Amino acid sequence: MENNKYWSDIVGRLKPYVPGEQPKNLNLIKLNTNENPYPPSPKVRDAIISELDGQLRLYPDPNAEILKKAVADTLNVETEQVFVGNGSDEVLAHIFHAFFKQQTPILFPDVTYSFYRVYCGLYQVPYELVPLTEDLSISISDYQKPNGGIIFPNPNAPTGRLLSLPAIETLLKSNKDSVVVVDEAYIDFGGESATTLVDEYRNLLVTQSLSKSRSLAGLRVGFAVGNSSLITALNRIKNSFNSYPVDRLAIVGGVAAFYDKTYFEKTCQKVIESREILTTSLADLGFFILPSTANFLLVTHNKKNAVELLKHLRDKGVLVRHFDQPRLKQYLRISIGLPEQNEYLLSVIKTLLNK
Amino acid sequence: MENNKYWSDIVGRLKPYVPGEQPKNLNLIKLNTNENPYPPSPKVRDAIISELDGQLRLYPDPNAEILKKAVADTLNVETEQVFVGNGSDEVLAHIFHAFFKQQTPILFPDVTYSFYRVYCGLYQVPYELVPLTEDLSISISDYQKPNGGIIFPNPNAPTGRLLSLPAIETLLKSNKDSVVVVDEAYIDFGGESATTLVDEYRNLLVTQSLSKSRSLAGLRVGFAVGNSSLITALNRIKNSFNSYPVDRLAIVGGVAAFYDKTYFEKTCQKVIESREILTTSLADLGFFILPSTANFLLVTHNKKNAVELLKHLRDKGVLVRHFDQPRLKQYLRISIGLPEQNEYLLSVIKTLLNK
Repeated sequence: MENNKYWSDIVGRLKPYVPGEQPKNLNLIKLNTNENPYPPSPKVRDAIISELDGQLRLYPDPNAEILKKAVADTLNVETEQVFVGNGSDEVLAHIFHAFFKQQTPILFPDVTYSFYRVYCGLYQVPYELVPLTEDLSISISDYQKPNGGIIFPNPNAPTGRLLSLPAIETLLKSNKDSVVVVDEAYIDFGGESATTLVDEYRNLLVTQSLSKSRSLAGLRVGFAVGNSSLITALNRIKNSFNSYPVDRLAIVGGVAAFYDKTYFEKTCQKVIESREILTTSLADLGFFILPSTANFLLVTHNKKNAVELLKHLRDKGVLVRHFDQPRLKQYLRISIGLPEQNEYLLSVIKTLLNK
Repeated sequence: MENNKYWSDIVGRLKPYVPGEQPKNLNLIKLNTNENPYPPSPKVRDAIISELDGQLRLYPDPNAEILKKAVADTLNVETEQVFVGNGSDEVLAHIFHAFFKQQTPILFPDVTYSFYRVYCGLYQVPYELVPLTEDLSISISDYQKPNGGIIFPNPNAPTGRLLSLPAIETLLKSNKDSVVVVDEAYIDFGGESATTLVDEYRNLLVTQSLSKSRSLAGLRVGFAVGNSSLITALNRIKNSFNSYPVDRLAIVGGVAAFYDKTYFEKTCQKVIESREILTTSLADLGFFILPSTANFLLVTHNKKNAVELLKHLRDKGVLVRHFDQPRLKQYLRISIGLPEQNEYLLSVIKTLLNK
């Protein structure tokens, strides 16, 4: 463990998150970090250019009111039920700080977004991993125990598996004393959002991102929706950290993305269709594919070693993601690309398998 | 104190920072938050438009290498000596977390950037306020005591007073066991940067912002320069918080701002000239003005109550800032505006004083 006399104790003990590779070689087909294969709505570009001609020299609205309103209008909630941040990773970080520093450990799945344990390290939050079932599902009955909070992605990442809204309600009812965070980074690709439940459950917080379904990974906008007293806590943390986390261009770009509902629905639908085609085609090649409602597939092949396949794909110019975790050693996560990229991926795999 | 059973203990105890007003009424003359009166370099706009036509759907480079290189090239340091973040407020927050969680209290002036104590609350950092001298100067001999770190702005805010580089060196030499942070948000308006000292002093960290001298408050870019082992600590914190804090547009906009050195120097010079004119004019009207090397003046009038003056200016469409702190009750902080805005400010004051 690295260390240095000037560091706070915590620094040497951190195990930072390692994001998927962002290659400089743009000829690579990038199916490794779940970005949307389609560009953002053209209205995002127009809105940003208008703002550029405005007042970039001035600080943004620290409360990003118009962005909160766009979220509220889109999800049919009140502005006071919305918190926005510099990507949903920042929003999640504040959530761990605001709600999860408790005596009792928080609960999250053993196979899930790996940033959760990193946040626990950063804010010294005790946690307990709850193993997914044999088929890599979340079983809500496993969460019926004392806890300082619960968090999971829905659909889960990197499995792609969805939990139904009734299942989430059951979980909320049996955990009224702690905050339940549903991380919906991938919800728009076929899942049903829990944001409809925030009026009823004061302990529910739902996070979403504009990085996936709204094609704005490069702009960094994420948000949380929940009871206004939870939002107040997040604002208290945010205003003790950085008054202006969302810049002027991200605010107007995010707003434009929300109001172009037609474009949003069309591109989500295209990704869903590609996912279904890719699922069938990979199954035909001997892959087992977890049922996914996300913009990626978690797959394993009955004959081919996952790391070998990863390397072969890389050699042929396709990046996919492998997780060095005990239960995922033989799996690869493949983001849904453009139809022609998915075709190319399949052709490379076919050649390798001599099919 | 507000509270809620779902909140972590810390949330209710926070005293969040309150930024200066960002009015929706654009007809107001905004001399309250130290923004640059001039727009950013036209090259910033060009760079952002190019990037818009690129890959906004893809995550940014998590390390923002080209931005670090632009900082390094500009300040004649190595890329490994640079850390970048979502505004210097975020950079400062990480600094408090990475270096200042110590047994011994950190030291900072009693009259200074009020966010410092907010960070201490957020990360539970013990601190001790070191009073400025009678004339509101930092006296480095007051910092010759055991400490867990030292931080101050140079020039100090909201006084505008500059500490010389030799004074900073003396401080660094007598505090080799703790990190000394020089917050240079306003250094480009006439001060000498301590970034030239980072090779020699392993305990020195210098922060700067693109919000003031580079007219990019709306884009949120800040950075720190220091020994690479200090930068490593900041990266460990950042990568445990948010992998991609600086978005694609902010990266290329920041880069363009650094490389347009001519524009930068020209606008800084114009602000400095306006500051000198305003200083003389205010002195003629009976104001006492602290000697400033920043893009603002801290002023007090021998006959006129500060809060009364604040309200009068507001009524006439001019925003300036008042701080509700014991030693600053009779002071106003006035950001340097365009020449015609400064003229208008003076005319409003003249009318009030019947001059």
